[in-house]
Amino acid sequence: MSGNEKDLLPSWNEGQVKRAMIDFVSRVTKKGGPYFVPAEDRIATFDNDGTLWIEKPFYVQLFFAIDRIRSLAQQHPEWREKQPYKAILENDKAALANISKKEIAEMLLEVHAGSGQEEFIRIAREWLANARHPRFNTLFTELVYQPMLELIDYLRANGFKVFIVSGGGIDFIRAFSEETYGIPCENVVGSSLEYEYAKIDGDWRLTRLAKLNKYDDAEGKPESIALHIGRRPIFVGGNSDGDLAMMRYAATGKKPFLNVLLHHDDAHREWSYDVESPVGKLSEGLDEAEERGWTVVSMKNDWDKVFQLKFNKI
Amino acid sequence: MSGNEKDLLPSWNEGQVKRAMIDFVSRVTKKGGPYFVPAEDRIATFDNDGTLWIEKPFYVQLFFAIDRIRSLAQQHPEWREKQPYKAILENDKAALANISKKEIAEMLLEVHAGSGQEEFIRIAREWLANARHPRFNTLFTELVYQPMLELIDYLRANGFKVFIVSGGGIDFIRAFSEETYGIPCENVVGSSLEYEYAKIDGDWRLTRLAKLNKYDDAEGKPESIALHIGRRPIFVGGNSDGDLAMMRYAATGKKPFLNVLLHHDDAHREWSYDVESPVGKLSEGLDEAEERGWTVVSMKNDWDKVFQLKFNKI
Ligand SMILES: [Ca+2]
Ligand SMILES: [Ca+2]
Repeated sequence: MSGNEKDLLPSWNEGQVKRAMIDFVSRVTKKGGPYFVPAEDRIATFDNDGTLWIEKPFYVQLFFAIDRIRSLAQQHPEWREKQPYKAILENDKAALANISKKEIAEMLLEVHAGSGQEEFIRIAREWLANARHPRFNTLFTELVYQPMLELIDYLRANGFKVFIVSGGGIDFIRAFSEETYGIPCENVVGSSLEYEYAKIDGDWRLTRLAKLNKYDDAEGKPESIALHIGRRPIFVGGNSDGDLAMMRYAATGKKPFLNVLLHHDDAHREWSYDVESPVGKLSEGLDEAEERGWTVVSMKNDWDKVFQLKFNKI
Repeated sequence: MSGNEKDLLPSWNEGQVKRAMIDFVSRVTKKGGPYFVPAEDRIATFDNDGTLWIEKPFYVQLFFAIDRIRSLAQQHPEWREKQPYKAILENDKAALANISKKEIAEMLLEVHAGSGQEEFIRIAREWLANARHPRFNTLFTELVYQPMLELIDYLRANGFKVFIVSGGGIDFIRAFSEETYGIPCENVVGSSLEYEYAKIDGDWRLTRLAKLNKYDDAEGKPESIALHIGRRPIFVGGNSDGDLAMMRYAATGKKPFLNVLLHHDDAHREWSYDVESPVGKLSEGLDEAEERGWTVVSMKNDWDKVFQLKFNKI
């Protein structure tokens, strides 16, 4: 880096990963250069859980669901005998840790069925403004990764359009994406339920139905990118095997691309997990990244800072 | 309008409609005012066919489908006995005029099934660069409404985010929306088929399946707005009963809104149609607009100019 340039990625340690990102961005923005990509094609897609913010001990959205289920339990006596509600109400941690992202998404659909979109987003916002992470004892929105915030800003400063493409619920992410990442609602792609616009008691209303519209993980990610964005990404950030499909999608286009895979190897500052983890499993992705020369980020080595705040009690 | 202000809507005649639009935009952008709407909530959604460009004698996409079907007919002998293919191959104009937008969408799915997204968009672009409108003998993209282009620019200049929300095919619109309207792919919402990302002959590929994902008309419009945009629009432009649902959606929000309904009443410069038209039927919408005080645009009286080009042979 020349002395004149301002470092827009101060939380990234100098090294191969940081260089690969800066080189890529320089190449695709160099007008007249052999790797130039016009601004309209500079699409960056980021996974959310475990890529932009914490996903341990389990998905933030699951904490949200748990609190919702507890607060709605009295109205739903049938939940006492039905999984995963039962595990939640009985606080069965072993059972909870093994609930899949898809089960969470489906449970969330049920928990939040019947509300409108604005109402749901309001409920999620209220929860996010109060709920605390069990280990760091801070708001979940404080547990976004500072280097990733810088990366998003850096890409945007270079004409990229930045999208979230997540297996998590689209409207849950919308509850904080704008304020937290500067990513507006319309740039959020995620798992979704069906919406219905119909006349209810004489009024036209939009309702969230308890019916899965799209499970946006693995192969669902490039499919949703096609629907929502309409262009192949050239920059993909992810952290698990669920992001492999969108990385392959970027890699098989005709444009230059960069796939950046975050490896959680920092038990001290955050968590260390990969092949064996039920949440954020990273196995095939790690092999394929190595084989194809994609960029693997070591949280431990490549990040000078994980969160913006300092946590003393880790 | 004060003498200092530049008229950003020069193709709109002075009058009630133009004043309503300018007043609305002034109110919602006036910081500290009682009707102020922050920029992130300034969502404008426009129907496409008959609102932003011509839809007569029938939908542009149908012209496209007809040409595709003719060029692919030899590979599909079964089409000779199957409607609406039969009508197309036999050039049965009476039958063609009565094909519904939904039938067109479904037929298009079938015609274009199997291709990738980029390939489909390329085919549509090539067609748009060559095909000509039968009455005006010009490219279809020359038949966008000049006043609407000005309106889109005017809204954007005032911090609005402008989206297309159309019953037409999402990828077909993406083939020209950016160049023609300055509306990027990701701001296009439309009818869609299912995309599948799967390994085919050893390669991972995204394929457009011959399976309807969403028919984005009438109630489908607010539903798709919820999925793609995640916010209720405050400015809606439309021209038919198919836009009524998204206008109702804007009207029942808590923010100021403006619904603008284009009435085609100009047989000399374009077309005159409403209640009886199979394409762009406008009946209930006209009644409801009048009843609720929404803004009805008379093409004949409110537009100084319809197209950018002048057509002599009309
Ligand atoms: Ca993840
Ligand atoms: Ca229309």
